[in-house]
This record gives sequence, C-alpha cells and structure tokens, in this order.
Amino acid sequence: MIAGGGFAGLHAAESLAHLPVDVTLVDRRNHHTFQPLLYQVALAVLSPADIAQPIRSILRHQENTQVLMDEVVAIETGARRIRLASGAELAYDYLVLATGATHSYFGHAEWAPLAPGLKTIEDAVEIRRRILLAFELAERQMQEHGWHPPLNFVVIGGGPTGVELAGAIIDIAQLYMRHDFRHIDPAKARVVLLEGSPRVLAAYPEDLSAKAEAALVKLGVEVHTRTQVTAIGPGWVEAAGERIDATVTLWAAGVAASPLGKLLGAPLDRRGCVIVDDRLNPPGMPEVFVLGDLAHLEQEGHQIPGVAQPAMQMGDHIAKMIAADLNGKPRPAFRYFDKGDMATIGRMAAVAKVEWPFKAHWSGFLAWVTWLTVHIFFLIGLRNRLSVFAAWIWTYFTFTRGARLITGDQRLPGWQEQIDLGPSKSQPELTSRSL
Amino acid sequence: MIAGGGFAGLHAAESLAHLPVDVTLVDRRNHHTFQPLLYQVALAVLSPADIAQPIRSILRHQENTQVLMDEVVAIETGARRIRLASGAELAYDYLVLATGATHSYFGHAEWAPLAPGLKTIEDAVEIRRRILLAFELAERQMQEHGWHPPLNFVVIGGGPTGVELAGAIIDIAQLYMRHDFRHIDPAKARVVLLEGSPRVLAAYPEDLSAKAEAALVKLGVEVHTRTQVTAIGPGWVEAAGERIDATVTLWAAGVAASPLGKLLGAPLDRRGCVIVDDRLNPPGMPEVFVLGDLAHLEQEGHQIPGVAQPAMQMGDHIAKMIAADLNGKPRPAFRYFDKGDMATIGRMAAVAKVEWPFKAHWSGFLAWVTWLTVHIFFLIGLRNRLSVFAAWIWTYFTFTRGARLITGDQRLPGWQEQIDLGPSKSQPELTSRSL
Repeated sequence: MIAGGGFAGLHAAESLAHLPVDVTLVDRRNHHTFQPLLYQVALAVLSPADIAQPIRSILRHQENTQVLMDEVVAIETGARRIRLASGAELAYDYLVLATGATHSYFGHAEWAPLAPGLKTIEDAVEIRRRILLAFELAERQMQEHGWHPPLNFVVIGGGPTGVELAGAIIDIAQLYMRHDFRHIDPAKARVVLLEGSPRVLAAYPEDLSAKAEAALVKLGVEVHTRTQVTAIGPGWVEAAGERIDATVTLWAAGVAASPLGKLLGAPLDRRGCVIVDDRLNPPGMPEVFVLGDLAHLEQEGHQIPGVAQPAMQMGDHIAKMIAADLNGKPRPAFRYFDKGDMATIGRMAAVAKVEWPFKAHWSGFLAWVTWLTVHIFFLIGLRNRLSVFAAWIWTYFTFTRGARLITGDQRLPGWQEQIDLGPSKSQPELTSRSL
Repeated sequence: MIAGGGFAGLHAAESLAHLPVDVTLVDRRNHHTFQPLLYQVALAVLSPADIAQPIRSILRHQENTQVLMDEVVAIETGARRIRLASGAELAYDYLVLATGATHSYFGHAEWAPLAPGLKTIEDAVEIRRRILLAFELAERQMQEHGWHPPLNFVVIGGGPTGVELAGAIIDIAQLYMRHDFRHIDPAKARVVLLEGSPRVLAAYPEDLSAKAEAALVKLGVEVHTRTQVTAIGPGWVEAAGERIDATVTLWAAGVAASPLGKLLGAPLDRRGCVIVDDRLNPPGMPEVFVLGDLAHLEQEGHQIPGVAQPAMQMGDHIAKMIAADLNGKPRPAFRYFDKGDMATIGRMAAVAKVEWPFKAHWSGFLAWVTWLTVHIFFLIGLRNRLSVFAAWIWTYFTFTRGARLITGDQRLPGWQEQIDLGPSKSQPELTSRSL
C-alpha cells in the first residue's frame, strides 16, 4: 500500500514490480507531476501535459500493481488498515507514505490567495494566468489613461524555485514579449526577489549562491536578502518595514509536510515531517515506511533535502528492504548518494553543484546545458521527453513561448484597488443613452 | 474597431494589414482558439496550447494593429463609440462585430452545469476532467464494492460536435485505456448520442448522414434520432419519456449568438444573430459589419452555416469593402464560396462533402486523411502545426494519449447520489479509534 504518486511513491511502486507482492498506489490526482519543470509551465514555456503523466499509464504494464485515485484520510497502524476519502478501507502488510509537502505560509493562511505557491499543475496554471494577465491589464490601462501602475513581480523566497521563477519572469518580460504590445514596454517590469536568510540558494555552497545572485542581478532582478516579509495584501508586500507595490506576488518561501504525517501518530519535526531511521521507519513501526519530502532523515548530521533525487532513491530502496524481509535477511540501511544539485537562472545560465562522477562547482552556460540534459533524461515518458525537447528548441530559437494562455478569471488581486477602472461589469449594463 | 478574435475577427484584422487604417481588436480572451479541434482537447489527444495562440502574438508584426483584452459592453452607433468592460470608451469609423456564438440550453440555464458544452478551452478542460474522472471513480467504486454503476456517456446533439465527441469517447474507452485499469473494463462504457431531428449531421447530404450514423453504430455508439431531451438531472437525462442513466452528459445541441447582437439595436433572428445584407451590414448601418457566427446571411435561400470557412471568408472580405470605400468605389458584395464540409468519426473514419476543387461525397479512411490534412493546414502557427502533427502520429501508433490530466475538482454531478460512498470528506475526520 503506497500513498502518493510523486517521485518517491512512483519509484517505490516501480521497484516492487518483480517481487511477489500486490501493490496499491493511491494518489488524489490522476497524474504524476515532474515538479522540477513546473516553473516552466508557470512561465508558458511548457504545457501542463508535457510534465505530467497519468500514474496508471506509467504503471499500466506492471501487473502486480493497481492505482486508485483517492486520498488516505485515516491510518490505523495497530490493525494495519487505512481508510480512504471515498470511504473504502484497505488492509496492508506494508504501508509506504510518500505524500510530500505543500506550501507553508507560516500561520498566515490568508496569504495563500494573494501569493500562490508552485506545487501542482493547478498552481502553475494559476501563476501563468496572473503573470500574463498583469501585462494585458497594463496594456488596457495604458490605452485608456495613458498611464499604468508599474508592473512589479515580487517573488518571496530565494530557494531554487524562487530563483528559477524570478529569472524566468524577467526573461519573459524582456525577451519574449517585446513585439507584442503597442502601449506598454514589458521590459520595464520590475522583478523583486525577497529572501529572509543572508543569501539565495542557502542550501548550496557559498560561491554558487554568490554566482546565482550575480547572475540574477545581471538579468535585472532586484535581489534583497536578509529581508523578512511581514505582511501581504492585495497589490502589495510589506518587507523590512517597507511596503512594496506588487502586481503579482508569488510564494516560494516555505513548505510544510503533507498532513498525513500527523495521522500516523509518530514523532514529527517542526515542519510536520515524520522522523525516520535509516530503514525509513518511524520509531517502533517496522511495517511503515516514510519517504521523500514527508520524511525527516539525517545523514552525517545533515537533514536530507526535500528534492527529487533522495525521493527517488528512497523509493528504489523500498524493494531492497522488502526483498530482504521475504528472504528472512536483515534490511539494508538507506544511504543517500548525492549526485549534486542544480538551479537555472534565466535563459542561458545555471549553477550546478556536481558531486558525482566528480566534484565541481559550475555556473553559467555549461551548468545550463547540464541542467537541460539532466532534466530531459529524468522526465518520464518518451513522448514528454520529445515534447519538452522540441518546446525548448523552439523557445530558444524563436523567442516565442508556446503556451501563453490565460484561462479562468480575468482579475488580479489588488488591481481594482490600485486604479479606478470606472464602471465594472457588476454595475448595471449601460444603455446607449447613458454613454 | 474589431470585436472578437475568432476566425472572422482575426481574418478581418489580418486582411486590413496593408490598408492605411488603424485597427483595434478587442477580445475578452488573450487567445484565438482553433475550435474545430477543441473536441481533441476534451478527449486528451491535444493540449490546450496546441490549438490556441495569443492573439497579440499572431498580430505582433502587424504595425497598424493593436490588441486589447477586454469586452464590449455597450455600442452607441449614433456617436460611433463603444464602451468596454474596463470602462474605456473607443471611437470608431468602422465597427466589425465577430463575437460568435455560445451554448443555448433553450431556456434551461440550469442544465449548463450538468451538461457542459464545447466552445472554449475552459469547456474542453472541464469535459476532459469529467470523462477521465468517470473511469477513475468507477475503478475506485469497483475496488471497494465489487460493483460500479454502468458508465454511460450521453451526448446531446448530433451535429458535427456531437458526432465527433461520441466517436472520440468510444475510442478512448475501447482502445486507449484498455491496459490501464485493474477492476473495470473501460470498453464496456456505453456512449449514447441523442439527436432531435431525423438524422445526424442534418446539415450534410442525406447519404453522408447515413454513413456517419452507420460508422458510429459500428464503433458501438447508440444513436437515437428523433429523440428530444426533456429534462437533465445529476446523473440522468430524460428523453422521449425515458430516463437514461448518464455518468457524464455533454451538450452539443444548441448555439445562440453572442449577446453583442442585442446591444446593436439591429434586427435579429430567433437565435440572436444579426440579420445582414450581402455587404455584411445590418439594415441602415453601413459603418457596422457583422461577421461569422454572429451574422445571419442568406445566399440563394439558404442561411450560411456558422462554421469556420464562411467566417474566414467574411473576415477577408472586410478589407475589400473598406479599400473600396477609401478609393471611392462601390463595395463588392460578399459571396460565400463553399469548399465543402467534414466531420470525423472516431479513429479512422470521417465524412466529407467536397465542393471544391471538384464535387464529391467521401466517407471512411480517405475522408479521414483529408480531414487531418485540412486541419493541420488551417491551424495557426508553425509550432502548433508541428505539435499537433506530432501528437497525432504519436496517438495513432502508440494508442496512448498525451494529455490525460484531471485538474480541479474531483466530483461528478450525480455520482454521489447514485451510490452511497460512505462518509465523505465534509464529515468530521475519522480518528484511529473509530475505524
């Protein structure tokens, strides 16, 4: 019984393909999302379907495995049973929890609609909508009044997601929309990156943090480190005692573990992650494994980061441990093998901390090419690989983006408050006479 | 001043590129949608971005043209001004109205959430969600109770959209999902097509209607002609005095003109289309042109149909008439040149009424290949052409679909009512003890 179809859950399911076990994978979505490329959906380079695949398609030929679109709502570890949102109860011999993490607004749930985060396909489409809509509204405003409020994009959080979003927004504003508008100059948009700690990419070595910051500044991003956000409102962000106008605010600051950890009744860290030992078990629960972002595991005094690589490795490790059980041998300990880490900065730069097959710190064009290669390689599905590869080639050479769609609502929080748009649609419809 | 960025509005704007005029195109969406392929988005063959393009991108190099994302809410023909939803007022010398049509539920607005229609990208994503979700819910139900309510897809309306949807649904159920489920047999899904008139594709010649119906029946679609729908509820449709279970109901029956026709104060037909003469003017309004689905124009006693071809031709004709005005010559009359009409039926069949370059009635594989070729050719943008072409090749040979994403809500109208799913998420969360 596996809960969660992200990197950890999917690798766990796939690793069990050839063991004499029955596998059930439960996820509340029908698709696996390749989260490292989500920001490219948010910036209209890729389509949602390019980075997502139906979980049951991925596992269609794995005969010992079934997939259910459902959600675990209760766990009874004593009786080894779970209950799903649909009401179904499932018994298990082993339970693998890999439901990942979600945004954390540090107790400010009211910030969520004002500053969306980037974890799901829906999030990415919503961020795309807001970014593209900001330019449309400014053009409309300029046409009418000859003036528009400055276009400010504020990204809160200077980790990999924040850095990638900020670099990509300045790219789309400066390079990809320059011929599209008649009244506004998209290149004048400001992109502000706010980070509470002393440096961006705090989990990277200091030299790479400095290079990333320099690359962002060179692109035109205003980077403010040691800057805590204290309030967010419609159209503004308050940080370090100052109020910054924000046409669009994005949240890349905090993650919290999925609430499933709590249902387990095992010790959690302060983010809600389940503390596990090197067999990925919570204390005293040898038949329960917790993987990926939901797990808190320390190795040589450092917590293993909540990124794709350790999640995949933990997933793969499940089969080794269960095979050991079936053969009556002791379970092997899990050891995270860090191959390195990477983040892109705009159109042609990246930073990479390479740990394997050799150790190096790369930045600039070489790191960027490495990033492209690794991400294409790890994408699931030949179709998605071809499609992403084609989209990247196209975007790179034509300076156009293939997925610039605004769908859904046509409002931005704060935009109505900042400027008087005159009679809105909610007022009675004009008659010819009143014009 | 052009309102609407569909086939008619876009062709009108493009036709005016080389005349000494200033063009403003207003559309409430940022993108042009290639409607003939919308059903392929609904059936997860294509991604939304494959068939949509930002209007301002399409027109980016046309220097006399600006694009506004806004909506016309009032027209003052006397003073030659329009007002937009944002409050802006624009003066015009010529007004081109091409805002198309929307669904008509024949006075039953309450049917809309139960039976979505297919006119926009949002509609297509919603229909995709419902169709894919139906299979997921059945699998979940089967796993829990060993039983699931029969999967019935009811398509209301046997015009081209209804025929294409019905054929594509039976295809996805029978061919594209057969290895994906462990408990249900997707191929057992029923697809019911209800048409009020005596035959499907009523606008086509009788022999092609008969061939289309035969092709649908051969695929397994249950076709009921002369069958009026009298009521729609959550999970059912009432037609010809009988209640049919409907896991998913789709609406392809009625269209009504955009409400913009009413604002004009010109004579309308019963669907709300503006009655125009062969210069595309409403009576007494030589500076107002009405095009596409919004126009009611008769030629040799027949109303010109609301499809892509006449819309494009009307758009192209605008420039000829305005050029004539600028040169002080009489405006040429518009004449619809019908090259034919086509509809696909499932994976490898279609019907085509060819009028040009020769007259013929085709059906089967030849018509299908023609359909593919014509649709790729008319798609806007090289990237979309390549992308759709690649998606079709992939889908055809691998029997997989690239865009099988369920996004948004995870409920279906009627599904909760039909079966007792037990405690739902709205009830208090279970504690371990209560299990």
